[in-house]
Amino acid sequence: MFERFRSGRSQGQDERVLKTLVSSCERLIGEAGESVGLGIARQILQSYSALSPEFKNRFFKAIAEGFNPDPGLVEQSAKRYAQSQDPKDLIQMVADAQPPRQELFRRINRVPEGCAALLKMRESLLQSLVKDPSLKAVDSDLEHLLASWFNPGFLRLDQISWESPAGLLEQIIQHEAVHEIDGWADLRRRLEPDRRLFAFFHPALPKEPLIFVEVALLREMPQSITPLLDRKSKPEPPTKPYKVAAFYSISNCQPGLKGVHLGNFLIKQVAEALKLEFPEIRQFCTLSPIPGFLRWLLANEPFARDGLTEKVWLRLEDRRRQVLARAQSLSAASDFARLAQDETLRPSIVSLAAAFLSNVSSSSRQADPVARFHLHNGARLERINDQADLSVKGLKQSLGVMVNYLYDLSTIEENHDIFLRGETACSKSVADLINR
Amino acid sequence: MFERFRSGRSQGQDERVLKTLVSSCERLIGEAGESVGLGIARQILQSYSALSPEFKNRFFKAIAEGFNPDPGLVEQSAKRYAQSQDPKDLIQMVADAQPPRQELFRRINRVPEGCAALLKMRESLLQSLVKDPSLKAVDSDLEHLLASWFNPGFLRLDQISWESPAGLLEQIIQHEAVHEIDGWADLRRRLEPDRRLFAFFHPALPKEPLIFVEVALLREMPQSITPLLDRKSKPEPPTKPYKVAAFYSISNCQPGLKGVHLGNFLIKQVAEALKLEFPEIRQFCTLSPIPGFLRWLLANEPFARDGLTEKVWLRLEDRRRQVLARAQSLSAASDFARLAQDETLRPSIVSLAAAFLSNVSSSSRQADPVARFHLHNGARLERINDQADLSVKGLKQSLGVMVNYLYDLSTIEENHDIFLRGETACSKSVADLINR
Amino acid sequence: MFERFRSGRSQGQDERVLKTLVSSCERLIGEAGESVGLGIARQILQSYSALSPEFKNRFFKAIAEGFNPDPGLVEQSAKRYAQSQDPKDLIQMVADAQPPRQELFRRINRVPEGCAALLKMRESLLQSLVKDPSLKAVDSDLEHLLASWFNPGFLRLDQISWESPAGLLEQIIQHEAVHEIDGWADLRRRLEPDRRLFAFFHPALPKEPLIFVEVALLREMPQSITPLLDRKSKPEPPTKPYKVAAFYSISNCQPGLKGVHLGNFLIKQVAEALKLEFPEIRQFCTLSPIPGFLRWLLANEPFARDGLTEKVWLRLEDRRRQVLARAQSLSAASDFARLAQDETLRPSIVSLAAAFLSNVSSSSRQADPVARFHLHNGARLERINDQADLSVKGLKQSLGVMVNYLYDLSTIEENHDIFLRGETACSKSVADLINR
Amino acid sequence: MFERFRSGRSQGQDERVLKTLVSSCERLIGEAGESVGLGIARQILQSYSALSPEFKNRFFKAIAEGFNPDPGLVEQSAKRYAQSQDPKDLIQMVADAQPPRQELFRRINRVPEGCAALLKMRESLLQSLVKDPSLKAVDSDLEHLLASWFNPGFLRLDQISWESPAGLLEQIIQHEAVHEIDGWADLRRRLEPDRRLFAFFHPALPKEPLIFVEVALLREMPQSITPLLDRKSKPEPPTKPYKVAAFYSISNCQPGLKGVHLGNFLIKQVAEALKLEFPEIRQFCTLSPIPGFLRWLLANEPFARDGLTEKVWLRLEDRRRQVLARAQSLSAASDFARLAQDETLRPSIVSLAAAFLSNVSSSSRQADPVARFHLHNGARLERINDQADLSVKGLKQSLGVMVNYLYDLSTIEENHDIFLRGETACSKSVADLINR
Repeated sequence: MFERFRSGRSQGQDERVLKTLVSSCERLIGEAGESVGLGIARQILQSYSALSPEFKNRFFKAIAEGFNPDPGLVEQSAKRYAQSQDPKDLIQMVADAQPPRQELFRRINRVPEGCAALLKMRESLLQSLVKDPSLKAVDSDLEHLLASWFNPGFLRLDQISWESPAGLLEQIIQHEAVHEIDGWADLRRRLEPDRRLFAFFHPALPKEPLIFVEVALLREMPQSITPLLDRKSKPEPPTKPYKVAAFYSISNCQPGLKGVHLGNFLIKQVAEALKLEFPEIRQFCTLSPIPGFLRWLLANEPFARDGLTEKVWLRLEDRRRQVLARAQSLSAASDFARLAQDETLRPSIVSLAAAFLSNVSSSSRQADPVARFHLHNGARLERINDQADLSVKGLKQSLGVMVNYLYDLSTIEENHDIFLRGETACSKSVADLINR
Repeated sequence: MFERFRSGRSQGQDERVLKTLVSSCERLIGEAGESVGLGIARQILQSYSALSPEFKNRFFKAIAEGFNPDPGLVEQSAKRYAQSQDPKDLIQMVADAQPPRQELFRRINRVPEGCAALLKMRESLLQSLVKDPSLKAVDSDLEHLLASWFNPGFLRLDQISWESPAGLLEQIIQHEAVHEIDGWADLRRRLEPDRRLFAFFHPALPKEPLIFVEVALLREMPQSITPLLDRKSKPEPPTKPYKVAAFYSISNCQPGLKGVHLGNFLIKQVAEALKLEFPEIRQFCTLSPIPGFLRWLLANEPFARDGLTEKVWLRLEDRRRQVLARAQSLSAASDFARLAQDETLRPSIVSLAAAFLSNVSSSSRQADPVARFHLHNGARLERINDQADLSVKGLKQSLGVMVNYLYDLSTIEENHDIFLRGETACSKSVADLINR
Repeated sequence: MFERFRSGRSQGQDERVLKTLVSSCERLIGEAGESVGLGIARQILQSYSALSPEFKNRFFKAIAEGFNPDPGLVEQSAKRYAQSQDPKDLIQMVADAQPPRQELFRRINRVPEGCAALLKMRESLLQSLVKDPSLKAVDSDLEHLLASWFNPGFLRLDQISWESPAGLLEQIIQHEAVHEIDGWADLRRRLEPDRRLFAFFHPALPKEPLIFVEVALLREMPQSITPLLDRKSKPEPPTKPYKVAAFYSISNCQPGLKGVHLGNFLIKQVAEALKLEFPEIRQFCTLSPIPGFLRWLLANEPFARDGLTEKVWLRLEDRRRQVLARAQSLSAASDFARLAQDETLRPSIVSLAAAFLSNVSSSSRQADPVARFHLHNGARLERINDQADLSVKGLKQSLGVMVNYLYDLSTIEENHDIFLRGETACSKSVADLINR
Repeated sequence: MFERFRSGRSQGQDERVLKTLVSSCERLIGEAGESVGLGIARQILQSYSALSPEFKNRFFKAIAEGFNPDPGLVEQSAKRYAQSQDPKDLIQMVADAQPPRQELFRRINRVPEGCAALLKMRESLLQSLVKDPSLKAVDSDLEHLLASWFNPGFLRLDQISWESPAGLLEQIIQHEAVHEIDGWADLRRRLEPDRRLFAFFHPALPKEPLIFVEVALLREMPQSITPLLDRKSKPEPPTKPYKVAAFYSISNCQPGLKGVHLGNFLIKQVAEALKLEFPEIRQFCTLSPIPGFLRWLLANEPFARDGLTEKVWLRLEDRRRQVLARAQSLSAASDFARLAQDETLRPSIVSLAAAFLSNVSSSSRQADPVARFHLHNGARLERINDQADLSVKGLKQSLGVMVNYLYDLSTIEENHDIFLRGETACSKSVADLINR
């Protein structure tokens, strides 16, 4: 609504617009904003959207400098609170410490399209932030508000199907980030009766998915992504009951929501919804890439020794060096494929992937955000599958290896605690891959 | 969902439940809460709802004492920020100053029914607060969050009609606070084609109105509430265009939203909606009670002299004493009616009401919240109507006098500024009532 | 839409309107009607709706005389078909035999509000028909079309609840014909969780129920209507499973649909819907009045002897004369109550009701449309309950006796066949009441 | 629902299934069908759907032979009616003349999916009919019922947009019969703000469009289809008002509705809907192909002389022979293009097309169903456009010539009457093309 095309404008005009814009912001957080603020907020969004990228940047700068808590005041009220610990002083301190910028954003949000506009604004801000770290506090305030407003309790879980609006499906095609959707026919296969696609929506953006997950309903835990993505494959007949729901892709759609973590809630709500529809499902798992595996291998970092017997450690190190030797010389895609399919090395590769993911190496959690995400959610490292993704991307990330994380609702809290202790919940088969 | 009947429980059991509840709250705001918090939050809401009022009170007490910002830490980080004014220090200070209680409520809110449960919780809290001011900081945190979540940008304006669900209409009957709705037939008249009823809804409570306003579509500005409420009256035929939309009642439905001001936004959005449907409407006004008029009169406080010529002031004081003399002796409803209809006093009563509302008396703004509300919104004091509400309530509040406030979108900002200066925007006719 | 108020018009004007109306009807079924008929049809409905009752009557007369099949033509084409039995001749004969009136109504129906208007038109026609049997053929054509259009396959079964639009609930209150609904509070009890109300709707009249049925969910087959209608009764807690669904009231809402039988389909679709929601329900039954019982008794008609042994017949006749002797002198409501509660006569009354309903008397099917309806549907006469409806209506219809008909899906076809043979499917307990 | 895959079955089994099927049909139209018919109807649809094409054919044959009116009875009752002309005899005659087959279909239709199944059944029947004309009477009965059920008054006009379900859009792509839709991007252009797509739906098939029309919103009457179909074209900015709505494609989606004419109603309802949305539109027209033009030309049939002066006739004949001479030798697509663009012949081609369409030749109405359709609807022949469709299809049908028919609501009845008289409503410019 507010993203109008801007006509050619002179620098001088832009300066004037910016100046008015900032003073409108000041007026909006004042007394007037409470009562006649809708008009002011609308004006702010219109002026802002017409700014050039350069002037947007300058606008962010201006609100980074101008809408901060008063340092002297905060110091004083913090001191008073520390002395008295009286509720009134606490309330005053909390009020004084809150950046007026937050109230500014809340008042902009009152306009019907305000929330969508603020999301777009943060998208621009995140780009400006790369070059200008002084904007960090502005971003922090926006992130804080968005996290509060996009609270999972306010989101709607919707199943996306072939009966969903084309305009919505188009966004799914565009935002799929794990296994690219190659046009409408590819999408359609992913919406057949043995597949599911769920997304979170916020009431203020009813037509825009925030994050979505793709699920395959199967008879057993999947070992390879290839049949799941085969658009020519026939849907599993629904006559035999499904036993496994495999999350094989999860993608964010809103760059403006960076840092607002919804994936964990999405997976768990989808698992609950599927459990209701298919009481016979007994496993909720993923089939996940290991994006950091090859990068870690090439970094040539020895395994940590904690928790491993010397014998095991030595054997792992041996394997690591052996595979590394081969991996260093890879260049064409076919080289990667050859290594991934080398029968003599396969056991070593699988064993290394298991050790990498179970965090024997201290740096792997940093190296592999996917592992970090699922383990933090309380999932368990269940099975390592080699030759599971022979696409160029899969080969170059992890020599074709993929992993199943298992979401077992009865052990999710315990697994999460294990993760917090710096360890990794894993199945016996994965432990065996490391230790034998 | 969480409001289950509690079975008889011993004091000891209640103590244990409370203890577990508080430690669940601690766990919820910790690391675990991020990942496996839905289960904890559900547990908290269930345990809370089963508490007796006494133990609810003790629960509030516990979170008033235990989930505060660390005073030493805040003082330190406030000092650091005051010295450096660095964004990083600012971010840290803001984080340290925020009561952990807020995060607690945000995480409880993640549960599907969480928001509704928090509203109910605040309703109880407000009752506890009356006796125990130490809970003020807890209430302040909840109010802060609710104000952010029930931001007008997130609300849906809906017209309520005879086609609305009976369960919803029942709530309207129950919550109408200005002119009581006497059963379904009375309500039905208020939903005929020459009447409108609009309400705000929040997506998290889709079946519960938050606040609603009743509007009459008329040919001219109304002088009396009686014909508007006459359930036997025939709807104005829609063949002749309506000229005036009169807001004749506005009521809140959610005690838990105390302090979250939505009335101003509701009136303005309704005016915009009606403007679209009836472009020929040229006046948006109210027909409002003056709840503080008679109370003020009986308080026997002289008019302030500011802004009045001596002659005017003396005349007003004369009238005041004259009416006061009669008013002091009132007791039966018929006494009030006789005074309200006394032809010799009517001009004085109307003149006094005008002077009272236009804030000649410094205390009237406090005395009359309705006037305060509309004038702060930017409305103008348009016309004083005597014998406008001859119900017992109307006579005892204001000797039957009512007032029209005018919402003129083109002067709303200006009127609001006048109000902030401590003055009152009023029509020439009202000014004349005072000065002549 | 077309039911406008007519202004005072002279007889002469009405004559002219009628003449134009009839010639518009002729134009509508001609060639022009196919192509530009919407305008003509609209015109017809407007003119018709403005006619006085007298002229509506004359309009019906005109289309009764003027839109018939050509007798000579039909005779000829029937003869040709009889000779050749050729498909072409058959098609021609069918076309010639069809009254042009049917096509007239079909073309009127093309207008958006046409179907609703035709329903209203038939309502008026049915009133005219009482005095003027020459309109029978018009009615027969309309009934034929409405039966085709209101085919159960086109109807939507909806549950009516307290969340339904008030305007719809108001219609339910108005149309309940068996056990009057005494205002909103009474209705509300009938919509609590242990009650159900279902209605059929047609897409062309989305806001108007066609027929509805009220159901009580119970632990056992009900013996008396009193507790079911008690608006103060507490809903059965849903914790214990319901065992019985009792249809206790079924009412038509559209007089214009007379002769279009939907009740049978409604009951069976509701039973299927309830079976899905409550798999544990094991009995679908009614609690029905016996509207013809006392009337039949007072008519003093001996029982037929077919199918009864002489001994049984003699005993029944004895009882009949005994009760009849008491019943003839009844006048005040209290007299009826006394008889209904007379302990010495109760066994006889119950036995007579059983014999009456099981059609021992040849005239009872005519006498009791409720029995006829359920038995024709394939239900079984299950149990006779005395002192089951002590309302004045219940006492005057059947001395307070009510009956349970049982809908057992597995025997419904068989029961229906029994009914067609002129017999009555009944339970052993009912048979015993007759024979012992 | 009933379209299950049939397993391999022997001929003998099929015979038995067919026999049971036919006897179920007999049972369904009997007494039992009224009361317990839902189960029988379901059974019929299941058995039917499992039949092989050959046995479907035999099923049609069976109901063609077995469910006819009784010839003797009809003859008798027709005679009686002819003599008495009494309403009772009329009603009896109408009942006797109606094929029991119709009641059979009506009772099958009572099942929830019945209507969809009957549509599919007629699709098969129409195929069988090609080889076996004895099925004509069955088809006539089905068509009669479908025409009554798919009465425009029961249809819903819906706008199809990019927000419509993908499954629905897929059907639009598949059924577009005039200007093929080449994938999703092509469809998307046809749903931009300056295009409209409307379809009729029936409540019993809520997800299946029956017929749809595509409209372009323009500044002036279009001369060529090329820019309208250009998927790279930018939507007309909505700032300048649209003046013309051009229907450029209309397609049926349901083969089973053959003979049920909905196009006329669709065009007029769409025109009304657009008139409401864009009051500034002043012309509703088409841009239509002339599918019969070249075929007619090559048939070498002289123009009729009626209504033409000798001079005009001679000149038209000259032109016809001249163009015919060139047209006879055409073979490659490029030959057609060359002729269509031959500057010396263009005036003759346009003139011949005008004369062809305005029915100077007596056979053109048969030859050009598109002209017949629009002229019968009451449209006017407005403008002939050469080089308007240079696609291979367009060249081979009509040497690239297209025509605008004008829908002027004020003259539509008159134009229709002109058409019925065997003449053609045409604009002055078209008349001039013929006469000059």
